[in-house]
Amino acid sequence: MRLGLDAMGGDFAPEVAVKGAIMALAELDKGCRIVLYGDEARIRAVLEAEQCNSEQIEIVATTEVIEMYDHPVRAFQQKSDSSITVGFHHLAEGLIDGFASAGSTGAIMVGSTQVVRSIEGIIRPTIATVVPTITGAPVVLLDVGLNVDCKPDVLEQYALIGSVFAKSVLEIENPRVALLNIGEEATKGDLNTRATYEHLQVGAETGRYNFVGNIEASHIFTSRVADVVVCDGFVGNIVLKLAEGLYEINKSMGVTNTFWEGLNYEMAGGIPVLGVNAPVTIGHGKSTPLAIKSMLLATEHTIRLKLVERLREAFR
Amino acid sequence: MRLGLDAMGGDFAPEVAVKGAIMALAELDKGCRIVLYGDEARIRAVLEAEQCNSEQIEIVATTEVIEMYDHPVRAFQQKSDSSITVGFHHLAEGLIDGFASAGSTGAIMVGSTQVVRSIEGIIRPTIATVVPTITGAPVVLLDVGLNVDCKPDVLEQYALIGSVFAKSVLEIENPRVALLNIGEEATKGDLNTRATYEHLQVGAETGRYNFVGNIEASHIFTSRVADVVVCDGFVGNIVLKLAEGLYEINKSMGVTNTFWEGLNYEMAGGIPVLGVNAPVTIGHGKSTPLAIKSMLLATEHTIRLKLVERLREAFR
Repeated sequence: MRLGLDAMGGDFAPEVAVKGAIMALAELDKGCRIVLYGDEARIRAVLEAEQCNSEQIEIVATTEVIEMYDHPVRAFQQKSDSSITVGFHHLAEGLIDGFASAGSTGAIMVGSTQVVRSIEGIIRPTIATVVPTITGAPVVLLDVGLNVDCKPDVLEQYALIGSVFAKSVLEIENPRVALLNIGEEATKGDLNTRATYEHLQVGAETGRYNFVGNIEASHIFTSRVADVVVCDGFVGNIVLKLAEGLYEINKSMGVTNTFWEGLNYEMAGGIPVLGVNAPVTIGHGKSTPLAIKSMLLATEHTIRLKLVERLREAFR
Repeated sequence: MRLGLDAMGGDFAPEVAVKGAIMALAELDKGCRIVLYGDEARIRAVLEAEQCNSEQIEIVATTEVIEMYDHPVRAFQQKSDSSITVGFHHLAEGLIDGFASAGSTGAIMVGSTQVVRSIEGIIRPTIATVVPTITGAPVVLLDVGLNVDCKPDVLEQYALIGSVFAKSVLEIENPRVALLNIGEEATKGDLNTRATYEHLQVGAETGRYNFVGNIEASHIFTSRVADVVVCDGFVGNIVLKLAEGLYEINKSMGVTNTFWEGLNYEMAGGIPVLGVNAPVTIGHGKSTPLAIKSMLLATEHTIRLKLVERLREAFR
């Protein structure tokens, strides 16, 4: 297996990314290689400083970097020798099996949708996050900020995507899929959510997934109601940021325990892009080496469990 | 001042409501009376059991109760001798200065909009909540679940309503008003939020309030960005329920501190209905005596600080 990593993504690149790659090696199979995309001389300098000469690390030299302030679409095309652009072309060509980056989310999405492309039948790819719960069971929340103004047919597909993710990656047998809403009854919610509820009922009847109805926000982190929580990206992003904000507040007050540590992005393994033809993982711009390591391990996990193949089957 | 309280609202009525009223008396002015609406014999039994014969408590005997499962509009009209229906008519006639209830939220909204009615110029009344922050400064969040599918002109009014509330009730001089969004830049968000941003810019230019731009959910509880956070009721309700859910999780794990206690609904004083012609407060269905007491004190505070008059002035 060959894991692609954008060495130029995130703050303090390439130091942080290279250090994270070295950390990941300790937990990866000997047959697994990490392919670093970026400034070769700078990458080599970090490897040397870290006294790493592992054969499991390869470098693909690139000369450009897409910055956070660049226009994603334009930069992706114009900076054709950037770590992200080259990485995505290699991914599409099968030279690597997955690609992870803590760089420009916009550019990663351009690469995902324009180079790797959506799986046939999927209207809009999505990004998901696995959130912790008090029981320790993971819950998938999607979309967490990629797509806003999602129509019911798009959200209906997220139910299936989330369900396949929960089965394949979290190994939950018959994941309970719920719609995030402001009440439990079918008649609750705004117009779009109510219409989505009806779509999900139809989807459940045809056996696409196990729809269990609405879930209120207070139950997301209990795992009592659902394993997969479907929502529009506007709402999902607010849920995620709110939880992260409260995690930070707790941390600043010295509150630490297993539940809250589950909201630590460093451990979360990045945000997978779901619905495109190859595994792509987005990391936090502030990623530490530990966060990069977690992201690489999560990407490896996704490849090994054949998530993309299983999504393709589900939408065939 | 005469504070109306629905003695039949909430679980374990009228015991809980009456006990809460007795608790409130200890902190209210001697000139303040609490008017209890409900089953006179049962109310008297509780007062006797609690050995309370205060002249500050009055009873208005009513014979019916609007239940949580009743259809709010129909029940409000058909159960014309219910504690909520009579209470709202008394409020509209000026026999009481404010009304608080832990009963059917739907029926309270019917009374608010059809009997007390909206303040002239306000498109849709709203419900707000005051959330705690790590600095101890309060932040107003609105709408928290009354209105979904809010158009930009409705949300624009919520900015003004929230600003007047923050000035009058929280005594913040020049409240910073922000729009809840998934990014800080003006171009972020879904279609409705982006359109609202433009409305708020115009409102700020004409001096209606101090609009400071977008706020991300991670900053709601820091008070670093805003004193007033405006959002659609769908999103606001999710924020509130999520925070309440995490409060419960923390509590179950033994985490307690001032910040999190601020999310304890028992201390929060209920949810004020804003934009109608008299003070109305909605309590939690699960209200304890302490929660009822907090709600009565919050209602008294609102009356004393002339919130309704100040809202009328703002929309004149």
